[in-house]
Amino acid sequence: MDVRSYIEENSAAFFSELKQWLRIPSISADPSRHAGVRASAQWLATHLRGIGFPQVEIWATGDDAGPGLPSVYACWPAADPAAPTVCVYGHHDVQPVEPLGEWDSPPFEPVERDGMLLGRGASDDKGQVLLHSLGLRACLAASGAAAPPVTLKLLIEGEEESGSPHFAALLRDRAAALACDVIVVSDTTMWAADVPSLCTGMRGLAAAEIILRGPQSDLHSGSFGGGVPNPLHAMAGLLAGLHDAGGRVTLPGFYDKVVSLTPRERELFGRLPFEEKAWLANAGHSLSTYGEDGYSTLERVWARPTAEVNGMWGGHTGPGQKTIVPREAHAKVSFRLVADQEPADVLGALQEYVAAQTPPGLEAVVLPEGPGVRPTTAPIDSPAVLAAQRAVARAFGAEPLFTREGGSGPEADLTEILGAPLVFVAAGLNSDRIHAPNEKVDMAMLLKGAEAVAYLWDELAEVSLSTGPR
Amino acid sequence: MDVRSYIEENSAAFFSELKQWLRIPSISADPSRHAGVRASAQWLATHLRGIGFPQVEIWATGDDAGPGLPSVYACWPAADPAAPTVCVYGHHDVQPVEPLGEWDSPPFEPVERDGMLLGRGASDDKGQVLLHSLGLRACLAASGAAAPPVTLKLLIEGEEESGSPHFAALLRDRAAALACDVIVVSDTTMWAADVPSLCTGMRGLAAAEIILRGPQSDLHSGSFGGGVPNPLHAMAGLLAGLHDAGGRVTLPGFYDKVVSLTPRERELFGRLPFEEKAWLANAGHSLSTYGEDGYSTLERVWARPTAEVNGMWGGHTGPGQKTIVPREAHAKVSFRLVADQEPADVLGALQEYVAAQTPPGLEAVVLPEGPGVRPTTAPIDSPAVLAAQRAVARAFGAEPLFTREGGSGPEADLTEILGAPLVFVAAGLNSDRIHAPNEKVDMAMLLKGAEAVAYLWDELAEVSLSTGPR
Repeated sequence: MDVRSYIEENSAAFFSELKQWLRIPSISADPSRHAGVRASAQWLATHLRGIGFPQVEIWATGDDAGPGLPSVYACWPAADPAAPTVCVYGHHDVQPVEPLGEWDSPPFEPVERDGMLLGRGASDDKGQVLLHSLGLRACLAASGAAAPPVTLKLLIEGEEESGSPHFAALLRDRAAALACDVIVVSDTTMWAADVPSLCTGMRGLAAAEIILRGPQSDLHSGSFGGGVPNPLHAMAGLLAGLHDAGGRVTLPGFYDKVVSLTPRERELFGRLPFEEKAWLANAGHSLSTYGEDGYSTLERVWARPTAEVNGMWGGHTGPGQKTIVPREAHAKVSFRLVADQEPADVLGALQEYVAAQTPPGLEAVVLPEGPGVRPTTAPIDSPAVLAAQRAVARAFGAEPLFTREGGSGPEADLTEILGAPLVFVAAGLNSDRIHAPNEKVDMAMLLKGAEAVAYLWDELAEVSLSTGPR
Repeated sequence: MDVRSYIEENSAAFFSELKQWLRIPSISADPSRHAGVRASAQWLATHLRGIGFPQVEIWATGDDAGPGLPSVYACWPAADPAAPTVCVYGHHDVQPVEPLGEWDSPPFEPVERDGMLLGRGASDDKGQVLLHSLGLRACLAASGAAAPPVTLKLLIEGEEESGSPHFAALLRDRAAALACDVIVVSDTTMWAADVPSLCTGMRGLAAAEIILRGPQSDLHSGSFGGGVPNPLHAMAGLLAGLHDAGGRVTLPGFYDKVVSLTPRERELFGRLPFEEKAWLANAGHSLSTYGEDGYSTLERVWARPTAEVNGMWGGHTGPGQKTIVPREAHAKVSFRLVADQEPADVLGALQEYVAAQTPPGLEAVVLPEGPGVRPTTAPIDSPAVLAAQRAVARAFGAEPLFTREGGSGPEADLTEILGAPLVFVAAGLNSDRIHAPNEKVDMAMLLKGAEAVAYLWDELAEVSLSTGPR
C-alpha cells in the first residue's frame, strides 16, 4: 500500500483522534485551564505509545519561580544507526478563546463543515502535530519496515502560546536526548491551498523602553515653556530620527550583519500571488503601504529588519488642556530582525543612538525588554530544505514556493541550543483564523501534510545532513 | 498727613482687615467651598461700602449651564467729571489648599511670621486687592479731598482660579458700567523686594489635540511591521518637525505678527538680576536651558512664542512588551503666543501643517481646545505705564524695571472687551508660593504697593490717557 492510499483509508480514524485531542481545553495562558494542558500532554503521550513509539516521556518544566507546563517527548530510532536524526517541533497548548460569543460553535467541541474542521487548536497546533502521527504510520505501512528511515524525535511543547518561558531551559537540560541533524518545525502556514510553500525564515526581535527625564516635576509652560527642554519633544525627535527619508533604520551598524536577499529568493517571492489590496484591507481600509525604499511589501515584512514604536506616553493625557512642560516621556520600541542580526547588537546600538540624540539637560534610560529573539533562516539551497521541497512537491503535486514569517516563536532557541538547521513544514493556511474565534483547519491540507512528512523521512534518509549549512 | 504716614499709622488695622478676609475659604474650584466664595464677595462689598465707596454691587455670573460665582463691583466717581476713569482688576477667590499636610499652619488661619503674612490668598490675590483699599484711603487722607482724583472702579472676580468661565460674558454684559480709560491689573508679581518692577505683557495661548489614525485595530508587528505606516512614528515626525534646528516654530506664518522686542526692552530685561542657575534649580537639578537661538532665557519665556507638547500617548503603554503597529496616536500641543499673534491664526496654521505632514494612508484630526487666549502687552512707553513707573518709583525709592509674564489669565478679555489699555501694578513676589502650601505675602510689599497706587491715581489724573496707545 502506498502512502497516499494509507492516508486515505485512515483519514476518518485520524480526524476522530484529532477531535478527541481538540476536546481537551489546553489553554496555557489561563491558570484555570492548566489541568487541561496536563491532560493534553497525557493524551498525546498515550497516543504516541499506541502507534508504536518505543520511547515516550512527559517532561515537566519549571524553575525557581514555579512549575511550568509539560512537554511531550517521543523517540523512534531508525533501524540503521547511521541514519540521520530528525527532531519535530510543535506544541499542544492553545490560545485563549475569548471573545467566546463570536464562536459559531463551542471552541472545544470540534465540528466538521465544508471540508473544514473547526475548533481551538485545529490548525495551531494540534492538527499540525498530529499529522506527523498519520504521516509516520503511512511511511511505515508503505515501506513495510518496523522502524522509520530516520531516527524520529518529537518535542511537543505545552507553553508556546504563553511565550515559551521554560523552553530554552528545557532544551539545555535535555540537549543530549534531543540531539539531531535537522529540526522540522510544524507550526507555520502555507501560502494557499493551491500554492504549497515552505517557510524559509523568521524575523527576530529586540525590544526596549526608552525614558527621557527632564524637570523634577511637570512645569507650568507659561513660566518655563520655551526656556527648558521638553522631554516629549526630545522623544519625538528621537523616534522620528529612527528612520531616514528612505525608510531605513538609522541605528549605527543596524544593517551590518543583515544577509541580503539573493536575486533567486526575490524572484521566488515575486512568484507568490500576493494581492496587496486584500492584505491591506485586513489592516485598515484607508491604509496604504509604507516602508523601506527598494523592497516589495512581502520583502519588507518578511526579510527586512524594522524599527517600530509600539507605544509612547507622557505628560497630560486626560481630557482638556494642561499647559505643562512634562517631567518625562516614555516610548516602547521594538525591532524586527533578520539573519544574522543579533538582538544584543541592536539593543547596544539603540543605547548609543539614544545617548547621542538626547539633548543636554535631559536624562535618558534604555530598558531592554528581555534578551530579544534571534532571527532564524532555512536557506533555500540547504539539503534539508531541498528534501522538504521534494517531499511537498510529491504530496501536493506542485512545486512549493518559498515564504518567510515576519515574527517568530521559540525556533531560534531550537536551532541555537540543539545546533541543527531548521526546516519549516506546515499544513496550516493564513485563513485558518488562528488566535481568533472560529479557528479552523482545512482537512485536505492536513492529509496532504501527513503525506508530505511521510515522504520527507525517506528524502532526509537519503541526503547527507551533517555537511549541510546551518 | 502724607500718604506714607497714613499707611504706616493704619497698617495694623489694614492687616487685621486682611486677616478677616483671608479666614473666608473662597476656593472657587471646590463646589463645597462655593458658599465661602459668596461670603468672600459679601465681606468685600461690606468693606468697600465701609470705606466710603458710593456704589458697591455684587454681580452674579452664570449662563445656561448653571450659576457662576459672584464678582464685586465698586465705583467712586472723581469730583472732576473730566478726570480719567480707572478700572482695577483682581480676584477674591483662591486656589485649593491640597496637600493640606504640607502647610505649617492652617491655610485659612492667617499668621504673621518674620514680616510675612501666611495664608491662602495672602498674595494671590486678596492681599493685592485690599492694598487698593488702603491706598485709596491714603490718597484721600493726603489730599483732604472727598473723592479720588480719578474715577475709580473695582472689578474683583470670583472665578479666576477656575479659569474665569463666565468672565468674558460678564464684561460684555456690564461693559457700560465698566467703561474706563485704563485697566490696572493687580494680580502679578514684582521681580524682588529690592527690585521693584512692572509687568508689561503676558503671553497668550492656543492649544489643540492632534490625532493620527491608521490601522482599524492594533496590528501584529511581525505580520505588518515595516510594511504599513505607524501612527506613532508619524506623530513623532510631526512633533519633532514643529521646531527647526534653531528652536524656531515651523508652523507657516507663525512669526508674521510677532512684535519684536525693541533694543530698549531687551536692555531693560538685561538689567534684571536674573540668576539662571537658581531659576533652573526650581525646575530640576540636572536641567539646562534650551530654546530659540538668539534670545536670553527671560526673553524666551516672556516675549517669544513657543510650541510645547503637553502630552502624547498611543499604542501599548502598560508593562512588558506588545509588538504592535498601533491604530492611532494622540498628542496635546499648545502654543504660547506674544502680541500680536492671534490664536485662530495659529490653530489654522497647525491644521495646515498637520495636513501637509501626515503620510499617505493615515488620517489626521486637529481638535482645538477652545478659542485660545490672546497675548496682551502694556508698552513701556505708554502714558499709563509711564505714570505707573513714576508712582512705583516714589513708593519704592527705586526706578522700577520691566518684566513680563509667560502665561496669562483673563487680561486679554479685559483689554479687548473694555477697549482700554492695561497696566500691571502688583506687590506680590515670585517667592510667595502662590498655588502651593504655605502661601505668604511680604507685608512691607503690600504697604509699598498701597503707597504706589495712592500715588498712581494722582499720576494718572495728570496724563492724557485717551491718546495713549492701546
